Amino acid sequence: MFIGAQVSLYPMTSDFVTVITSGLKALAPYHDKLRIETDDMSTLMVGAPDPLIDAIRDLFAASARLPDHVTMHVTLSRGCPGEPDDPTCRCETLTRAQDQSLDERKALALQAVTAAPDLGVQIDVQFSLYVLGHDRHMDEIYGCIDFLKASGTFLKSKNFCTRLRGDAGAVFETLRQAFLRFGPAEGHVTIDMTASANSPSLS
Amino acid sequence: MFIGAQVSLYPMTSDFVTVITSGLKALAPYHDKLRIETDDMSTLMVGAPDPLIDAIRDLFAASARLPDHVTMHVTLSRGCPGEPDDPTCRCETLTRAQDQSLDERKALALQAVTAAPDLGVQIDVQFSLYVLGHDRHMDEIYGCIDFLKASGTFLKSKNFCTRLRGDAGAVFETLRQAFLRFGPAEGHVTIDMTASANSPSLS
Repeated sequence: MFIGAQVSLYPMTSDFVTVITSGLKALAPYHDKLRIETDDMSTLMVGAPDPLIDAIRDLFAASARLPDHVTMHVTLSRGCPGEPDDPTCRCETLTRAQDQSLDERKALALQAVTAAPDLGVQIDVQFSLYVLGHDRHMDEIYGCIDFLKASGTFLKSKNFCTRLRGDAGAVFETLRQAFLRFGPAEGHVTIDMTASANSPSLS
Repeated sequence: MFIGAQVSLYPMTSDFVTVITSGLKALAPYHDKLRIETDDMSTLMVGAPDPLIDAIRDLFAASARLPDHVTMHVTLSRGCPGEPDDPTCRCETLTRAQDQSLDERKALALQAVTAAPDLGVQIDVQFSLYVLGHDRHMDEIYGCIDFLKASGTFLKSKNFCTRLRGDAGAVFETLRQAFLRFGPAEGHVTIDMTASANSPSLS
């Protein structure tokens, strides 16, 4: 299994380089747990979903605490058949999910969001979950939507994606649960996610 | 068939509202061909792939002609089983693709990129193509990668995505061809795409 993300942070300020550099400092605690490589368009992070989503959450929360409008785009992927197996990506949640029904996975996902830390930063997210190479992919998607609507972070459905709103702790836990608990445990699942904070046009 | 996109433009300048407003002016010629609705996180565009991708291209090209660093994120979707049928999204390329082999589709995609207009704006793109609900999805992905490598806009492969670089005309035609020619014509296909121009850290 290979698990990782391409992450891009977009501060809407002329001083964007400083904000990005500050945001990247929030990744310091994760450098020994994740492979992190930055190029001119995105930062690749590879590793197990616990440090992976925590690192992405902390990167965005640190930037969202500054006054400027900031957004972030993340492409998350697990189980892509074109990527090599990587033992550092091993994840107990996925291993256990192989024997769990959709209803059990929905309940465990809700428990995890309830237990998420409060980071004291309000954020908005919209995202799409893709279950690849699986004939019954829409059953998993609809199961995930049931979970999202009960998660406490659900804002609304949009064409092609779902809007979440809430504390960064609960919102990113919701994303991690959607990523890990839905779609086959050994399958290829991706998320296309955008986060936003301090938007002047918040509706 | 329902075809559309969620589009977000991110100018890395404190004057981002002005740049976004200017960019949206480039959409004026498309208002009678597409359904366009903007909220605080993205602009929904629904319609046939010809005006849809042209509108997204012109929006980004107009912003990229300004001196500031600007990026754009687009979630493209066709054939989502959760969306209603929409006759305005009808597309001849998809109708014909039902009877075309993968090799024929690769050749037609290359012809279309060769015929793309030159807009005089250099841009960078990275994107992922997702073929949903189809057991043999990786065959279509590998066919698409063959096309991309021959397209003249291919820069490099990255984990989870492919980098393109070139004139906005050729690059967006490459994206349109990837979106329409690969994956089942009647199937659910999405693209997660990020564009960038005037980056100070261009590598």
